[in-house]
Amino acid sequence: MSDFAADPSHPRYQSLLLRHRLEEAEKQGMLAGSAMIAHGRGEAYDYLLGEQTIPSAHEATLHALRALKNAERPIISLNGNAVALAGEQLLALAQQLKCPVEINIFYRTPKRMSALLERLETIKKERSLDVEILGASPNARIPGLKGPRAKCTKEGIIDSDVILVPLEDGDRCEALVAMGKTVIVIDLNPLSRSAKMGTITIVDELTRVAENMLLQFDSIKMSEVSKTYDNEEALRDALRHIATKFSD
Amino acid sequence: MSDFAADPSHPRYQSLLLRHRLEEAEKQGMLAGSAMIAHGRGEAYDYLLGEQTIPSAHEATLHALRALKNAERPIISLNGNAVALAGEQLLALAQQLKCPVEINIFYRTPKRMSALLERLETIKKERSLDVEILGASPNARIPGLKGPRAKCTKEGIIDSDVILVPLEDGDRCEALVAMGKTVIVIDLNPLSRSAKMGTITIVDELTRVAENMLLQFDSIKMSEVSKTYDNEEALRDALRHIATKFSD
Repeated sequence: MSDFAADPSHPRYQSLLLRHRLEEAEKQGMLAGSAMIAHGRGEAYDYLLGEQTIPSAHEATLHALRALKNAERPIISLNGNAVALAGEQLLALAQQLKCPVEINIFYRTPKRMSALLERLETIKKERSLDVEILGASPNARIPGLKGPRAKCTKEGIIDSDVILVPLEDGDRCEALVAMGKTVIVIDLNPLSRSAKMGTITIVDELTRVAENMLLQFDSIKMSEVSKTYDNEEALRDALRHIATKFSD
Repeated sequence: MSDFAADPSHPRYQSLLLRHRLEEAEKQGMLAGSAMIAHGRGEAYDYLLGEQTIPSAHEATLHALRALKNAERPIISLNGNAVALAGEQLLALAQQLKCPVEINIFYRTPKRMSALLERLETIKKERSLDVEILGASPNARIPGLKGPRAKCTKEGIIDSDVILVPLEDGDRCEALVAMGKTVIVIDLNPLSRSAKMGTITIVDELTRVAENMLLQFDSIKMSEVSKTYDNEEALRDALRHIATKFSD
């Protein structure tokens, strides 16, 4: 990241920084062919949200954090874009949760897997983190999915009770929900199938969510776990927020 | 494009085909680093439009076609994504209009220019088209723009009266309008600066617009040129159309 020289006061700094991270990740072979297009779709929705954490997303973030902290076996699932955009923050979050992360990618190739593993190992070393990284040697399958995308580990995704899946595809999200897990989705499009399928859906940009979770980690009170969180209402709130962009 | 093997009855066929065209163009060095991200943003807005030509966009397309046919010196400006996605259709349209096209790219490098020229020459040969391709040897600048992105030709963009700029950036769109030209913008985001700046803004996907113009080319009556076309109203209509996606 050392050659990124944009001025932090530039109004598009954050957006340029995220693009830079993706470009670096692409050079290192971490991304699928569709990664940049997916990021562009996210950019469009983030623009419609005003590139900010709206109150209902903040509420969903806190609820998700409580679920992760209360979990018996929490896990963070990582794909190429998640590692590229927020690998450092998500490993730091896993360290706090004392949980493993698992690389679980849609287009699985040995080259991509090793690029992602290498990147995560580098972050661990640089930040002196002690986090178990699963996914290199899958020994189980997510029921209901076909092909390489079903591959996962028994000790990781299969046995988890609460799973954070940033930027997940709809099919896999649905399959994880069908396994009875609490599935925490981070997706900028409140209309996506993942967003609708998730147990807790955070309609916000991944790096903001990860930062918010790290900031709130210690101060959040477990006794305040809300029983009344309504995911559908949170999605409706995001839709209403976006709709104001399109009203006269 | 011969190795694209998706099934045309696949519900995402058109979307996959466009992605395939971009991937091929990227391999050939035609695209800027941000091209895929820009396409992803377009995909998001097209999804919100229902991946269809809405009536106000069709009206804008007809109005734009009339303006091009009535122009004294029409021209079609081409960037990397426009050539990749609709190069064949846009050259066919230029042939019908008996006008030149001009390659006018934001991130100008000799490698990108020659890749784009080569692609256009291939299309001309394959389709036996007789269209002048400008832009290889710029001899003028668009007033008000800085750096290489201002480069253009006197006999092309400078002397044109009506210019079709698919997928244009806001600055250049504004500069062309300031020159007194009729600027026809094709942009899926009705909130973009280009969309707001354009004389005639077609809120629709580029290949659908190009196809519609080719289909309507002969049947459109010049005597029916509408004097009452309202670009702001067309944009408001697109916004209303998208807003219904976000209402409860």
